[in-house]
Amino acid sequence: MAAMGLLPVPTAYAGPPDLAPYSGNGVRVVVLGAGIAGMTAAYELSKAGYACTVIEGRRRPGGRNWTIRGGDKVEESDAVQRCSFDAGEHMYFNAGPARIPHHHKAILGYCKDFGVALEVIVNDNRATYLHGDGAFEGRPLPNRQVIHDSRGFVAELLAKAISRDALAEDVSVEDKDRLLAFVRSFGALTKDYSYKGSPRAGYEDPPGAGLSQGRLREPLSFKELLKSDFWEYKLYYSERFEQAATMLQPVGGMDRIAQAFARRLGETIKYDCVAKEIRKTGNGATVIYQDGTSQKLSIEADYVVCTIPLEVLATITNDLAPEFKSAIAACDYVKAAKIAFQADRRFWEEDHQIYGGISWTNRDITQIWYPSAGFHRDKGVLLGAYIWTNQIGERFGRLTPEQRLEAAVISGENIHPGYRLQVSRGVSVCWHKIPYSQGAWADWPPGARNLSYHILNRPDGPIHFAGEHLSYLTGWQEGAVLSAHAAVRAINDRVKARKG
Amino acid sequence: MAAMGLLPVPTAYAGPPDLAPYSGNGVRVVVLGAGIAGMTAAYELSKAGYACTVIEGRRRPGGRNWTIRGGDKVEESDAVQRCSFDAGEHMYFNAGPARIPHHHKAILGYCKDFGVALEVIVNDNRATYLHGDGAFEGRPLPNRQVIHDSRGFVAELLAKAISRDALAEDVSVEDKDRLLAFVRSFGALTKDYSYKGSPRAGYEDPPGAGLSQGRLREPLSFKELLKSDFWEYKLYYSERFEQAATMLQPVGGMDRIAQAFARRLGETIKYDCVAKEIRKTGNGATVIYQDGTSQKLSIEADYVVCTIPLEVLATITNDLAPEFKSAIAACDYVKAAKIAFQADRRFWEEDHQIYGGISWTNRDITQIWYPSAGFHRDKGVLLGAYIWTNQIGERFGRLTPEQRLEAAVISGENIHPGYRLQVSRGVSVCWHKIPYSQGAWADWPPGARNLSYHILNRPDGPIHFAGEHLSYLTGWQEGAVLSAHAAVRAINDRVKARKG
Repeated sequence: MAAMGLLPVPTAYAGPPDLAPYSGNGVRVVVLGAGIAGMTAAYELSKAGYACTVIEGRRRPGGRNWTIRGGDKVEESDAVQRCSFDAGEHMYFNAGPARIPHHHKAILGYCKDFGVALEVIVNDNRATYLHGDGAFEGRPLPNRQVIHDSRGFVAELLAKAISRDALAEDVSVEDKDRLLAFVRSFGALTKDYSYKGSPRAGYEDPPGAGLSQGRLREPLSFKELLKSDFWEYKLYYSERFEQAATMLQPVGGMDRIAQAFARRLGETIKYDCVAKEIRKTGNGATVIYQDGTSQKLSIEADYVVCTIPLEVLATITNDLAPEFKSAIAACDYVKAAKIAFQADRRFWEEDHQIYGGISWTNRDITQIWYPSAGFHRDKGVLLGAYIWTNQIGERFGRLTPEQRLEAAVISGENIHPGYRLQVSRGVSVCWHKIPYSQGAWADWPPGARNLSYHILNRPDGPIHFAGEHLSYLTGWQEGAVLSAHAAVRAINDRVKARKG
Repeated sequence: MAAMGLLPVPTAYAGPPDLAPYSGNGVRVVVLGAGIAGMTAAYELSKAGYACTVIEGRRRPGGRNWTIRGGDKVEESDAVQRCSFDAGEHMYFNAGPARIPHHHKAILGYCKDFGVALEVIVNDNRATYLHGDGAFEGRPLPNRQVIHDSRGFVAELLAKAISRDALAEDVSVEDKDRLLAFVRSFGALTKDYSYKGSPRAGYEDPPGAGLSQGRLREPLSFKELLKSDFWEYKLYYSERFEQAATMLQPVGGMDRIAQAFARRLGETIKYDCVAKEIRKTGNGATVIYQDGTSQKLSIEADYVVCTIPLEVLATITNDLAPEFKSAIAACDYVKAAKIAFQADRRFWEEDHQIYGGISWTNRDITQIWYPSAGFHRDKGVLLGAYIWTNQIGERFGRLTPEQRLEAAVISGENIHPGYRLQVSRGVSVCWHKIPYSQGAWADWPPGARNLSYHILNRPDGPIHFAGEHLSYLTGWQEGAVLSAHAAVRAINDRVKARKG
C-alpha cells in the first residue's frame, strides 16, 4: 500500500550507520573537531571497534553547539566578554543552533538514545510584534493582525475576481460556488465576501465575562501593509520546512546534546589541542597538533575525518590535492551574530502575554527572541538580536561588545518601550570572530555548490570530510550528523574492501 | 502615546478583584461548586475576610477541570470505568479543559501566583494528518501539504486575476507590481506566478547530506481539495483567537490548577456534599445539602455564589424567581466526549515525527491528539477522540465504553494503519453523562444569549451566579474565573453599601 501511495510513508532516514561489531578493530581514525559532526563520527566508529582520537581546539565539546551561562567567557578575535547572568536552569542562551525541527530524525534519534530531554521551542507566536521604520509610522503591530489581515485582503481580492468571472477559464461553473466558500473560509470574510477584521486577527477588547462580548480590531490599511517589508519573508518564515511546528529544544540548553556525546566519548576527545598540520602518508595520514602546554605532538591514522569549518581549515598547513584546496576556499560562511540580555522581570509575559516566539524589525537586531523555557519565573534570558546577513553581521562585528549592546537596546525600544530599563548584563557573539569557527554556517555560492561541494564529498586519499557544510542542511545540526554518517559509511566500506 | 494608538496596549484585564482587607469580616458566603469559578470566588472572598463555605458534590476539586490517571474511576450515569494507565508524570489526559491561550490572563495569573509550572501545548503541527473519507480516496494527507497547497492555489488564482487586470478598479497601477510580489511570496509561487509545490508544503525526499538535494512533493489536485471538508474550518482552527500559539498547559495535568486552589482553600471546601435546596430567606439564603453519610444539613449565608452548571441547577429545588428559572432552562450544554488510550510505544513520534498537535478526520472521533508532554519517553497517552458536536456526542454516549473504544480504534486505523495494535487501556468520558456536570460547556442559543444570559448576570436577591456559562468565553476556564471575579465584586459592592 505504501508503494501505491495509499499510506503516509515516513521519509527515508533509516537510522545511524549499521556497522558490524568489531569491523573497525585495528583501524586508527583521527577525527578533527569535537563538534556535532566529529563526535557523531567518533561515536559511531568507536562502537564498531575503530580506535578513534578526536582533536579539539577548545576546552569544551560541541563546537558551534554552544550554550552560554553565567560565568562563561566569550572570546572573540579582539575582545573578551564574561557572561554575568544569574544562575538557573533556564538562564542560558544558545549562541549557535537553538532549534531542532521535528523531522530532523538523526539528531533527534541521538537525543532519544542519550536521554536528552526535549521541550517545545515556540517559533511562531501570534502575540509577538512586527516592526518596520517604513510602515505604519513605525508602530509595532501584533503578528496575528498582520498575518490575518493579509489573508483577509488576499481572500477578498480573489473573491472579487471570481465574482467578476475573471477566472472563468480556470474554474469550472460547478466549482465556482465551492471556491467562493473556500475563499471565504480561508480569509474569514463576511457573508458578502468582504474582509472586516476577524477574531483570528484579534480584538480591540477581548471577549470576557458578563456583558463583555469583545470588539474586533479594525483591519490595517492594505496599502500600508504592501509598503512594509513584512510580507517579503517575515510573515512566512515559520512556515518554512525547517521552521514549522513542532520545533524542539533540549531542556536546559542545546549543549546537553554535546555533553551527552562527550560523556560517551570520554578520553577519546583531546581538548585544548589545535590541529596545525594534516599530511597524507603512504598508507594513512599524520596530524600534527599543539596541546595546552604549546607542545607539538603528532598522531598517525589510517583515516582522518576532518570536520573543521572550511574557513579555519584553509589556515591549516596541509598537503591536500589542489582541487580540494580550491574547493575549501570556494565556500562562504555566514557572519551571523546573537545578543542576549538578562531581564529581572519577564515583561514580555507579564505585559504582552508573549510566551516564546520572535518579534521582527527592520533594524539591525532583526529579531527579538523570547525564551520558551522558564515561563512565569522571576527572571529570564532574552535574545536581543539575531542577525544572519553578512552585511549587518560585519557591521555589528566592528562594534565593541558595549556598542553592540547599546545598539540593541536602542532598537529594542521600538518594539518594547521602556526596554532599556528592563534588560541588562548583555553578551554578544559574532561568529566570524570566534576562533575555531570563523563563521556561523556554510553558505555555498550557487556555482561552488555544483562544483567544489561535490569534490569535498569525496575523500582525498585517507582524508574524509564531514560537517554541516557537506549537506543541503547547512546551519543545522542534522546536516552535521548526516554528513558524519556518510563519512563513517564510506570509511567502513573501504575497510571492509581492504580486509575483504 | 498609548491613547494616540502609537504603542501596543496590553488588553484591559487589570487583575483579580482588589478588595480591601477585612472588608468581608462577619459576612457569610456559601459557594456552590468547587470548580474553577467556585474556588476563584471563595479564594478572593476569603482573602478579604469573608467567611466562605464551598459545597461540592464530588470528592475532588476542579469540576470539569479533571485530569485522569491510572487508578482513577470514571463514573457516568449508567457505566463505571477504571483507568488503568501506567504511572508517570506524563501518563494522564485532561478530560475537560486541556489548553490555556496565552491571552487568558486571569487563569494564567493564578498559575503564576500559585507556582503552577506551565509548558507549551502544541496545537498546530505541520506534521499531523488530515483524513476525510470523501477526499483523496481516504488517504491521510500531511497537514503541511494541505495548508500550503491551499495557499499556493489561492495565490496562483489571485496572481492570474491581477495579471488580467481584473482587479484594476481595486488596485492602483503603482500597487500592482507590489501586490504581485506580495502574492508570490504569500503562496510561494514560481517566478512566473504559478504554484508547483514548495518547501513549505514538504518534500517527497527531504534534503540531506552529500548529494541529497531533496525533491519536492507534487502539489495536490485543487479540484480534489475543494471536494474535501478540510477547508471548512479544520485548516484554520488553530488560527482562531482562542487556539493560536502560544497555547499552554500545566506540567503534569490541568488539575494542578484545581489542586493549587484547593490547597489554599483547605477545609473551606466541603467535599461529597450535594446541594439539594436553595432558599432565599429574609436577609440571606439557606442551602440544604446532603453529606457523604446521606445526612441532610443546612447552612445559612448572607450571599450565595452559585456556580453549578445550569443543566444540574435546573434539577435542584429552589425558590428562584420565575425569570431566573426560565433563564436557567434556556441554556444548552455541549455533549462533548473524549477518549484516551495508552500506547506502549510513541509510534506517532518514532514513525511520523509528530510531537504534539492534532490529526483530523471526518469520522466520529473527529480528532486524534498527540501528547505535548513526555517526548521520547517509552510510553504515552494519546487522545483517540475529541468530539464536540451534540449529534456525535449523543451517538457516542449511547455506546458502552467498550463499543466506544472499538469505534475509535476502527477510525484511528484510517490515520495510523496498525493503530489497533499500538493502543490499549482506553477510557472515555461523555460529559453529558457525568454527574454534577451533565454537559461539557454552555452553548447559549442566540436568542437566549440576548435575553436569559443577561438575567443570570444579575443576582436574584442574595444569590449570585458565576461559571463559564456566564461569559463570552464558554468552555474556557478564563470565562469561569472572570465571571467569578464579577460575582465577587458585585457582592463586595453590596457589602460596602450596606456597611457604608
